[in-house]
Amino acid sequence: MSVLGYAAYETGGTLSSIEIERRPLRPDDVRIRIRFCGVCYSDVHHIDNHFNNTVFPLVPGHEIVGEVEAVGEGVDTFKPGQFVAVGCMVDSCGTCQPCTSDEENFCERGPTMTYNGKDRIDGSNTLGGYSQTIVVSERFVVRVPAELDPASVAPLLCAGITTYSPLRRTNVGPGTKLGIVGVGGLGSMAIKFGVALGAEVTVFTTSPGKADAARALGASEVIVSTDRAQMKTVRGRLDLILDTASQAHDLNPYLNTLTRGGQLVVVGALDPIVPPVHAFILASGRRSVSGTFIGGVAETQEMLDFCAEKAIASDIELIPVSELNDALDQLRANTTHKRFVIDMSTL
Amino acid sequence: MSVLGYAAYETGGTLSSIEIERRPLRPDDVRIRIRFCGVCYSDVHHIDNHFNNTVFPLVPGHEIVGEVEAVGEGVDTFKPGQFVAVGCMVDSCGTCQPCTSDEENFCERGPTMTYNGKDRIDGSNTLGGYSQTIVVSERFVVRVPAELDPASVAPLLCAGITTYSPLRRTNVGPGTKLGIVGVGGLGSMAIKFGVALGAEVTVFTTSPGKADAARALGASEVIVSTDRAQMKTVRGRLDLILDTASQAHDLNPYLNTLTRGGQLVVVGALDPIVPPVHAFILASGRRSVSGTFIGGVAETQEMLDFCAEKAIASDIELIPVSELNDALDQLRANTTHKRFVIDMSTL
Ligand SMILES: [Zn+2]
Ligand SMILES: [Zn+2]
Ligand SMILES: [Zn+2]
Ligand SMILES: [Zn+2]
Repeated sequence: MSVLGYAAYETGGTLSSIEIERRPLRPDDVRIRIRFCGVCYSDVHHIDNHFNNTVFPLVPGHEIVGEVEAVGEGVDTFKPGQFVAVGCMVDSCGTCQPCTSDEENFCERGPTMTYNGKDRIDGSNTLGGYSQTIVVSERFVVRVPAELDPASVAPLLCAGITTYSPLRRTNVGPGTKLGIVGVGGLGSMAIKFGVALGAEVTVFTTSPGKADAARALGASEVIVSTDRAQMKTVRGRLDLILDTASQAHDLNPYLNTLTRGGQLVVVGALDPIVPPVHAFILASGRRSVSGTFIGGVAETQEMLDFCAEKAIASDIELIPVSELNDALDQLRANTTHKRFVIDMSTL
Repeated sequence: MSVLGYAAYETGGTLSSIEIERRPLRPDDVRIRIRFCGVCYSDVHHIDNHFNNTVFPLVPGHEIVGEVEAVGEGVDTFKPGQFVAVGCMVDSCGTCQPCTSDEENFCERGPTMTYNGKDRIDGSNTLGGYSQTIVVSERFVVRVPAELDPASVAPLLCAGITTYSPLRRTNVGPGTKLGIVGVGGLGSMAIKFGVALGAEVTVFTTSPGKADAARALGASEVIVSTDRAQMKTVRGRLDLILDTASQAHDLNPYLNTLTRGGQLVVVGALDPIVPPVHAFILASGRRSVSGTFIGGVAETQEMLDFCAEKAIASDIELIPVSELNDALDQLRANTTHKRFVIDMSTL
């Protein structure tokens, strides 16, 4: 079937409407009428072809919330009218060790990304959520709990799961002294999850002006990371740090705030890690630096259920599709940490 | 009491004999007649004042094996005539969280090092195992099991515990796919421990000529790390890597050989880690880089007991004290991976 989408036609190009084809339902497919789609910095990366692998025309969007419109003959977990969501992946091999352990995000053959990916069956280029409709295997669709505002759910599919997954895998809970570096989109989510899990949250920011915002989100302590004296007060105290800052920065001062056996998990984009990490700082406290990449489908469902239970949502700015190009420019200019969500009824 | 030692009198100076004082026994002290003392690259670091903190005259030596000669009035765990050992530390605060969790090596106030440290009671500069006698609190003395050759035990107090500790803390056992980078002093011990713990050991070396030696130690696979094709065969397969190489090198090719959730533990001296680690390689497999520093006293005892049970020892070259300066030069020139042990009866 033919539906409307919004596409970039060339590197860095302005997005405009496009007519795209959605495949007929395979037995395991769910067809979703998209209501809301989040705008992520990854979308900018792909539009601007930062990875030199973008196939144009590109239809971005991997924070997708909508209603089930129809299902394939083999699907009985989803019913028309139900609110559902799709995140960064739409398929994976299904048979490797990670796939059979609910970590499709680490599929050994590579998960199929929601856009700019290659469909595993027909080889076509995948087209994302900046569109009216999407067709996805039920294995990659999650339920949106009725308690949640569907528009605010969109960023949870990316910033939400990216921060929730490492917090859960490291068993953050009451008694955990958790540090969060950055108060942007990822950082705000991480603070909310940390507080909801019962941790004592210390926020690091370079902007003293963000202290109030961090406290409003539930942080019990805010440290201005450029202030050496303040940094010293945290030395050796934290069990876990989620580093959500996306600009290159020195991890060593944060590593020094970790207790013995403490872990720093990089979830922002830092590649390569410069200035380099000091092995001595790792060794002197059995500390580690690790990375993580979104989460599995079951974990994503768990995260949404947790959000419903704890009344957690993203702070979003809903925009009509006519403001999308401007929103992308704001992300490019790094002048906002807002999570823009497109109201897809405006397409 | 006055005893003979062997000391460096100035930066990089030749070592020669010295008369030193050993304190009268405190209630918790053990006086040890030193039989053997290992020669460690750390000794070179201190003689050559690489850390700009050496107090001269310096009596190095932190791989100490000897017989109990006398004990303080409060000591009943050690008896004269018993073979015992002392490693890199001789004291710690005893009250902090690490100290009360058998991790004196991570004492928050800093452990007192066996030499070039400051005695916590009388403030004197500690003098190490290149001497006839040492007096140490029983809390930092371990038993040498009768099954072990005392001379071969010496390097276990440093290279042994440094590699044993991270293998045990990561629960290496049957089924673990373990990688060891380097076949030097640390690497050889790590291979022996890995095999004895039941792991399947893959050794990485830059020298194809070391393959036979690695296999003789029990490695089931040897990869020449400069050979890209060989490296590719290990991609994504290992659960844990102990990186014992002491020269700066690129960790990224090794990180790529880790499976999902795999850990690379740096035990060689790499500070800072250059070229830098790529966050993408960490993220794409939930991988981590961590460090470690020797081990606690109880862990050191456990390690010696394990060596006795599994008949593990260091491969050493026993030397008279007259050959010590030459041995230090060989370490400086990096022309040997031998673990020299001084026969202290020659002093
Ligand atoms: Zn897979
Ligand atoms: Zn995203
Ligand atoms: Zn040593
Ligand atoms: Zn302590």
